[in-house]
Amino acid sequence: MMKPQPRICDLIPAAMFEGFLLVKDAQERINVKGAKYLDINLTDITGEINAKKWDNVDFIPSAGQVVKIRGQVGEFNNRMQLRIDRMRESTPEDEVEMPLLIPCAPRKPEDMMEDIIARVDEMENAQLKQLVNRLLDEAGDAIFYMPAAKSLHHAQRSGLLNHTTTMLKGARAVCDIYTFLDSDLLAAGVIIHDLCKIEELRSDEIGLVSDYTVEGNLLGHIVMGVSRLDRIGRELGTDRELLVMLEHMVLSHHDLPEYGSPKPPMFPEAEALHILDLLDARMFEMNSELEKVNPGAFTDRIWSLERKLYRRQDTEAAEE
Amino acid sequence: MMKPQPRICDLIPAAMFEGFLLVKDAQERINVKGAKYLDINLTDITGEINAKKWDNVDFIPSAGQVVKIRGQVGEFNNRMQLRIDRMRESTPEDEVEMPLLIPCAPRKPEDMMEDIIARVDEMENAQLKQLVNRLLDEAGDAIFYMPAAKSLHHAQRSGLLNHTTTMLKGARAVCDIYTFLDSDLLAAGVIIHDLCKIEELRSDEIGLVSDYTVEGNLLGHIVMGVSRLDRIGRELGTDRELLVMLEHMVLSHHDLPEYGSPKPPMFPEAEALHILDLLDARMFEMNSELEKVNPGAFTDRIWSLERKLYRRQDTEAAEE
Amino acid sequence: MMKPQPRICDLIPAAMFEGFLLVKDAQERINVKGAKYLDINLTDITGEINAKKWDNVDFIPSAGQVVKIRGQVGEFNNRMQLRIDRMRESTPEDEVEMPLLIPCAPRKPEDMMEDIIARVDEMENAQLKQLVNRLLDEAGDAIFYMPAAKSLHHAQRSGLLNHTTTMLKGARAVCDIYTFLDSDLLAAGVIIHDLCKIEELRSDEIGLVSDYTVEGNLLGHIVMGVSRLDRIGRELGTDRELLVMLEHMVLSHHDLPEYGSPKPPMFPEAEALHILDLLDARMFEMNSELEKVNPGAFTDRIWSLERKLYRRQDTEAAEE
Amino acid sequence: MMKPQPRICDLIPAAMFEGFLLVKDAQERINVKGAKYLDINLTDITGEINAKKWDNVDFIPSAGQVVKIRGQVGEFNNRMQLRIDRMRESTPEDEVEMPLLIPCAPRKPEDMMEDIIARVDEMENAQLKQLVNRLLDEAGDAIFYMPAAKSLHHAQRSGLLNHTTTMLKGARAVCDIYTFLDSDLLAAGVIIHDLCKIEELRSDEIGLVSDYTVEGNLLGHIVMGVSRLDRIGRELGTDRELLVMLEHMVLSHHDLPEYGSPKPPMFPEAEALHILDLLDARMFEMNSELEKVNPGAFTDRIWSLERKLYRRQDTEAAEE
Amino acid sequence: MMKPQPRICDLIPAAMFEGFLLVKDAQERINVKGAKYLDINLTDITGEINAKKWDNVDFIPSAGQVVKIRGQVGEFNNRMQLRIDRMRESTPEDEVEMPLLIPCAPRKPEDMMEDIIARVDEMENAQLKQLVNRLLDEAGDAIFYMPAAKSLHHAQRSGLLNHTTTMLKGARAVCDIYTFLDSDLLAAGVIIHDLCKIEELRSDEIGLVSDYTVEGNLLGHIVMGVSRLDRIGRELGTDRELLVMLEHMVLSHHDLPEYGSPKPPMFPEAEALHILDLLDARMFEMNSELEKVNPGAFTDRIWSLERKLYRRQDTEAAEE
Amino acid sequence: MMKPQPRICDLIPAAMFEGFLLVKDAQERINVKGAKYLDINLTDITGEINAKKWDNVDFIPSAGQVVKIRGQVGEFNNRMQLRIDRMRESTPEDEVEMPLLIPCAPRKPEDMMEDIIARVDEMENAQLKQLVNRLLDEAGDAIFYMPAAKSLHHAQRSGLLNHTTTMLKGARAVCDIYTFLDSDLLAAGVIIHDLCKIEELRSDEIGLVSDYTVEGNLLGHIVMGVSRLDRIGRELGTDRELLVMLEHMVLSHHDLPEYGSPKPPMFPEAEALHILDLLDARMFEMNSELEKVNPGAFTDRIWSLERKLYRRQDTEAAEE
Repeated sequence: MMKPQPRICDLIPAAMFEGFLLVKDAQERINVKGAKYLDINLTDITGEINAKKWDNVDFIPSAGQVVKIRGQVGEFNNRMQLRIDRMRESTPEDEVEMPLLIPCAPRKPEDMMEDIIARVDEMENAQLKQLVNRLLDEAGDAIFYMPAAKSLHHAQRSGLLNHTTTMLKGARAVCDIYTFLDSDLLAAGVIIHDLCKIEELRSDEIGLVSDYTVEGNLLGHIVMGVSRLDRIGRELGTDRELLVMLEHMVLSHHDLPEYGSPKPPMFPEAEALHILDLLDARMFEMNSELEKVNPGAFTDRIWSLERKLYRRQDTEAAEE
Repeated sequence: MMKPQPRICDLIPAAMFEGFLLVKDAQERINVKGAKYLDINLTDITGEINAKKWDNVDFIPSAGQVVKIRGQVGEFNNRMQLRIDRMRESTPEDEVEMPLLIPCAPRKPEDMMEDIIARVDEMENAQLKQLVNRLLDEAGDAIFYMPAAKSLHHAQRSGLLNHTTTMLKGARAVCDIYTFLDSDLLAAGVIIHDLCKIEELRSDEIGLVSDYTVEGNLLGHIVMGVSRLDRIGRELGTDRELLVMLEHMVLSHHDLPEYGSPKPPMFPEAEALHILDLLDARMFEMNSELEKVNPGAFTDRIWSLERKLYRRQDTEAAEE
Repeated sequence: MMKPQPRICDLIPAAMFEGFLLVKDAQERINVKGAKYLDINLTDITGEINAKKWDNVDFIPSAGQVVKIRGQVGEFNNRMQLRIDRMRESTPEDEVEMPLLIPCAPRKPEDMMEDIIARVDEMENAQLKQLVNRLLDEAGDAIFYMPAAKSLHHAQRSGLLNHTTTMLKGARAVCDIYTFLDSDLLAAGVIIHDLCKIEELRSDEIGLVSDYTVEGNLLGHIVMGVSRLDRIGRELGTDRELLVMLEHMVLSHHDLPEYGSPKPPMFPEAEALHILDLLDARMFEMNSELEKVNPGAFTDRIWSLERKLYRRQDTEAAEE
Repeated sequence: MMKPQPRICDLIPAAMFEGFLLVKDAQERINVKGAKYLDINLTDITGEINAKKWDNVDFIPSAGQVVKIRGQVGEFNNRMQLRIDRMRESTPEDEVEMPLLIPCAPRKPEDMMEDIIARVDEMENAQLKQLVNRLLDEAGDAIFYMPAAKSLHHAQRSGLLNHTTTMLKGARAVCDIYTFLDSDLLAAGVIIHDLCKIEELRSDEIGLVSDYTVEGNLLGHIVMGVSRLDRIGRELGTDRELLVMLEHMVLSHHDLPEYGSPKPPMFPEAEALHILDLLDARMFEMNSELEKVNPGAFTDRIWSLERKLYRRQDTEAAEE
Repeated sequence: MMKPQPRICDLIPAAMFEGFLLVKDAQERINVKGAKYLDINLTDITGEINAKKWDNVDFIPSAGQVVKIRGQVGEFNNRMQLRIDRMRESTPEDEVEMPLLIPCAPRKPEDMMEDIIARVDEMENAQLKQLVNRLLDEAGDAIFYMPAAKSLHHAQRSGLLNHTTTMLKGARAVCDIYTFLDSDLLAAGVIIHDLCKIEELRSDEIGLVSDYTVEGNLLGHIVMGVSRLDRIGRELGTDRELLVMLEHMVLSHHDLPEYGSPKPPMFPEAEALHILDLLDARMFEMNSELEKVNPGAFTDRIWSLERKLYRRQDTEAAEE
Repeated sequence: MMKPQPRICDLIPAAMFEGFLLVKDAQERINVKGAKYLDINLTDITGEINAKKWDNVDFIPSAGQVVKIRGQVGEFNNRMQLRIDRMRESTPEDEVEMPLLIPCAPRKPEDMMEDIIARVDEMENAQLKQLVNRLLDEAGDAIFYMPAAKSLHHAQRSGLLNHTTTMLKGARAVCDIYTFLDSDLLAAGVIIHDLCKIEELRSDEIGLVSDYTVEGNLLGHIVMGVSRLDRIGRELGTDRELLVMLEHMVLSHHDLPEYGSPKPPMFPEAEALHILDLLDARMFEMNSELEKVNPGAFTDRIWSLERKLYRRQDTEAAEE
């Protein structure tokens, strides 16, 4: 396990630093005397610091890499600066705790993936089971680190798995209450509804989204998801009605045309999928935003929600 | 228990009828010979029939009353008509099964009320418990038969209790998943959010809504609910922040100004209340509408949902 | 060639009728004497008439079939009725002129199809040519009679071909004016943009649309078109950027989310496709509506256009 | 009466200043030699100046206080700075003319309040008179200095009284023209419609609004006003119809859901109240904005009005 | 003066009728014996009755004409029918009280016109006076009987004058309160803002609007009014700024694009004009609608107002 | 013809410059020694440079003028600065190529004007020909340099002519395809639809728009265009229906109230005009925006189009 290390926001001049940091960007430069040095910006979840390595510039790390650093904090132009003595790439053996470096889902991706697999195994509808398994296969490893959005809800490493597994819990509860719902159909909808975000967003293994892909911009994950489902369902010979219903669930899960769904949910499982998606997104976003303000205060207006939020004074309730 | 009785939609000429029916309207008239007779329209959940009682017009039942009838089916102007031999008011001893006469919630109102009381008793927040108890007291007996709407979701006898108790199940599940939520606050919101429908709608004990009240039209149940909460909370000396938050939950539970909420939900419990309300209304409405069409068919466009609905062919799943 | 025949709107009692009519519906019934007879409703483009065949009920035509009738006009309950003496199915040799029976495109479907084939042959981009050819193949024979809508623009036999070929003329003109446009890409977009209406609408060979299909209702021709394109493009190994651009053109051709396009046109060829589609639909619809009113008059408010239209007094200009 | 004093915008280095200024903020600090001094920002309606009192720091005024200052203007870092020789709190005897220090209503609050009292006394409807008097009592002294908004129309000391009394004039004129209106009801609506702004906004006695209160954010002055009216009306036993109508007037005075009124005005007095409110807000805002530009020029786009305004060249007309 | 006459709604079989009625339509017909008779529908403000004149069919009145009738009430097919003995056109000497026959403004058109002339004479701005006088001249006699709308507010004989003169009272009051307004400019705006309704609507001298004119449909009275003002102002050499401001007032008086104003009011007089127009239309419409229901009741939903209206129980206040 | 000259964006210190530049602004100043010098900012289409003329300040050019400059590039405060040795006004003989200095239409205004004249000469409808000629006369010389907008499509010197002549080509093509259209009417609409932009925008001869005029702000070019048409049509005695139709075409060419058209197009020529206008604006704007990004990239969100645009990788197609 990783040793405790100072947080960037706590660094003060003259302090020594030893620990792991994420590379934001790095460049080899030449100083006035003609010597090479490394100019590098490093981050943990609390902030960012510029660093220089003045000699032994043996390797130039790439953006998104985690490196182990030893060095001393100095000051330059009124800003902290780290003078690096030693630096190396991190290895699996370091067991770096990523949540100290970037926002991460609260559970391990492997555990969350296991929940999903377990739910698929439980399915009584063999066609749905086959179809979902095939789609998970096609999604590949990216599913493990993929965030669920560029900047809104679940914009965190493995956010897609976090969003999906939380919704699966909701789906189970909803099917217990509204017993006329087909729970396999709803679970299948939950698992695949956002799967094409993997192709819509350009994310590295760290779980940082840099941009939308060309397909993401021109088609969007909803329509890409329908196409993929249609293609694979035809390959597998999935029952046509079942396939079209599942495609409709993906297509309608944003509910309104202006949010990307050309059709509104037209049967109860599609409606339930939309509402569970809304619930999970809102709970995540509200909770995250409220963590940033003090009890008894309002947040600033949040553009995605078109409102301010209030964090109650009564501290037992507002924090978890 | 009530004996089996023929359904109005099954009546044929010359058949005898004995059983309980609901009075739609009744009037004493005078025939060509100057004799009084009773002209009465009677309904069960399957249809309506006109009836005459030609002699012994000893009492004229009022609309909404349940009567026991014995008579014979005839035909007049190509339409069925019932000649009444005997008629009396129903009594509690008759144990009339109301669901045979009008749409009713699937559970008994007393049982549903017990669930609510149980949830209130469970509350750890004493102020909320006191406040909710007081509001339930003020609501009086009307809560037992009140529908939840004039014509949309839960427009059924005891629909308000049905809606409330189903939402309480949802609230429990949501608090299990999103543990930062204050479950007492959410449960209190669920129980009181529609309580002022009792003053907004004009309903008789049968559970039929004839119209909106003057207050219902000029203020609406949301604002009436906030006023009532404010008045009672001040009387009880409820903590100001808690009271204002609860008022806000009632105020914002329709989410958007155009649906009657001048403020959107501004903290997680308010948002959860809105989403649970939406979920229960949608599940009820979709299920009811789909029961009216055949598997594999679409409903007509439903104006309140602004869409058609599809009932899948696969019969195991679409029916409960 | 077909002989001249009376129009239904001109029939008067006692007249003889000989000619071809379209069957709206037909049923075998039994008269009071226990004898079988045929009860049939027949239409041409000017109206509808009920007919009876009292004997020799040897075959019962199906809705949408064209039959040759000989009979005499009578009157029953103040309405015209045709007594059929002889009736047979029409054959290709009859060369029935369909425009006398239902609204038809002004050109023959074969001629219009030839224009499309010619345009495809002209394509310099081999990938586009291959893709469009394959999509036309999959569309099958239905393309020949398919209308372009259930009730709006080009709701006529072969309306889809009419719409497509007219837009191809527009596309050529637009590429001549705006020379930076890729004319093959635009032509491909025109040819395939509405092709999935064949699966969205339930049409018979006569070109009458009875309803939307389940897929049509749940997915819509736009998304169905994107899925199909995606599947076939992957099979053919079409260049990814080209394929995604063509999918985007289909996806965005209704321009706005509320009209079914989750993405607006994001490059000039997509925009041009949308505008050419709009132009052809509007010209067709306005011209059709104005033909129904007198010069100098306004139409009633047309719901699809949200306006009334004016037909000018100056007759040379307003009619074609 | 207050003696003439220089305006902050006219101060030049070396000038002497004697007069009254408003304290924006004030802090005791310690100079390099370890001595206490007072660092204070002072404003009048024309601008703001920083000041220092280097010795005899006997009292530290609080924000919003008016102080009498004697000192000399200097310059520090290219900005004016006032060296204070003497400073004391202002007293009622000073008769400070507040309009020289902050935006104020053009009439004295006491005079405006008198107009309101006079209108209440004139009421023939005893219930309305009692109700309005009670609401004015509950409003307390804050009514004298309260602005009518944080940043839009009547954002001035005593702006609420200014807005109310001007609308009362309008109400009188409207009742003279449309004689079917109940003038007492309309006057009561005018007086109470914005009264809960006192609880919605956090204002000091100077009439500066710093923020919305928690209640203001979560409920808004409209709903707070309805609740208060309902509670007091029930206490006083006000006729139910009259009370509900008055509540409706408060509730509907913003006319549209998106402006905070869940119900539109549903009888003529409610409509008249809304229109008088609109008229007064617009006249105030347009006039204020036009005073900031030259004749013959347009203002910038004003976001609250979603338009630019034009000030005519003809100077007699455009200025008052 | 006209003698009292029975109201159509009070007629009973066998009664004699003598009085004036308005011709809705009239046609000469031929009875089974080949004799000519007159078939005519007649109205007063309370209803409509069919009448026959069996002989002496010497003249056939035209729709919209007022005739003097003597006859007797009979019954035909369960409906009242008037057998006419004598009929003649009405003459000025009859002094027919039109308000008994159709909805009329409460004051005489001549008196209202005098008010307008008086206001114009009062104008200090000679250019405005000249311009308004010229526009009134061009309007001609139609101004005397013109309604202000086809079916909404002031759809009554001389409704345009009624609307204009009531707004002039409002304008005077508003200028007294907001003294920075140019009262001549506002009065000019009031007088001319709806003047082009005379060309927009097709009205007969009775004051009944049958339809919109071609210009009315294609351009609308607002744009027609601007064009006319522009043309006449240029002829008269009106100061350009003054003319453009007046054109803007006409153009913006419906406030919003969706109500026909491409520009919103951009100076105070334009805003005041819009608000006075709104006030007068709303007061008229609400009062008219409420007169149709009983105290304590709601109207049906009124489409132009998008709401129901409430008539209070307290009768002193709700009726004039 | 103009000699090649360096582009501002390519200037480097010490370089000599000789050529023509556009004056952005110029001022005479006095240096520390009391001597006059000229301080001037100069632009070409690639950028802007500050210049000084230290002696012989014989003339001060005005903004928008083109001057011939000879001088040397220096540096001051890290920015390029031009020291002017000689400067004179440009003359027609210089044959300055304006497209090197500001955005210009790709064709010469005289050539474009000729196209328009040719189309008018071709008109068979003498009334339209007379009307259009008269409007072109009134437009005067400004038509030669006028841009078509302040900042959107065709914001270039002679942009109005460019827009008009391109649309004329489109109109010809559309009339060939939809033969029921009146081509003279459509061409007339094209030529006059934006003509009043000349009065709406304040442009100098260079073709730079500085602002909207008072009329432009208060009325807008659409309504100004209708008024002008109405006035001139009445003077010429143009047939009323024809005139009203043409006015309607101008009025409706923005299609929707929120874009400035109070009436939607109500006959086919009006609709065609709107669509051709839309097509030309969109093609121009998209092409211009895409020229600013690299192949394979997206533009930033473009506010007027409410979307991003994509420039394809395939370079043959995306560039002209």
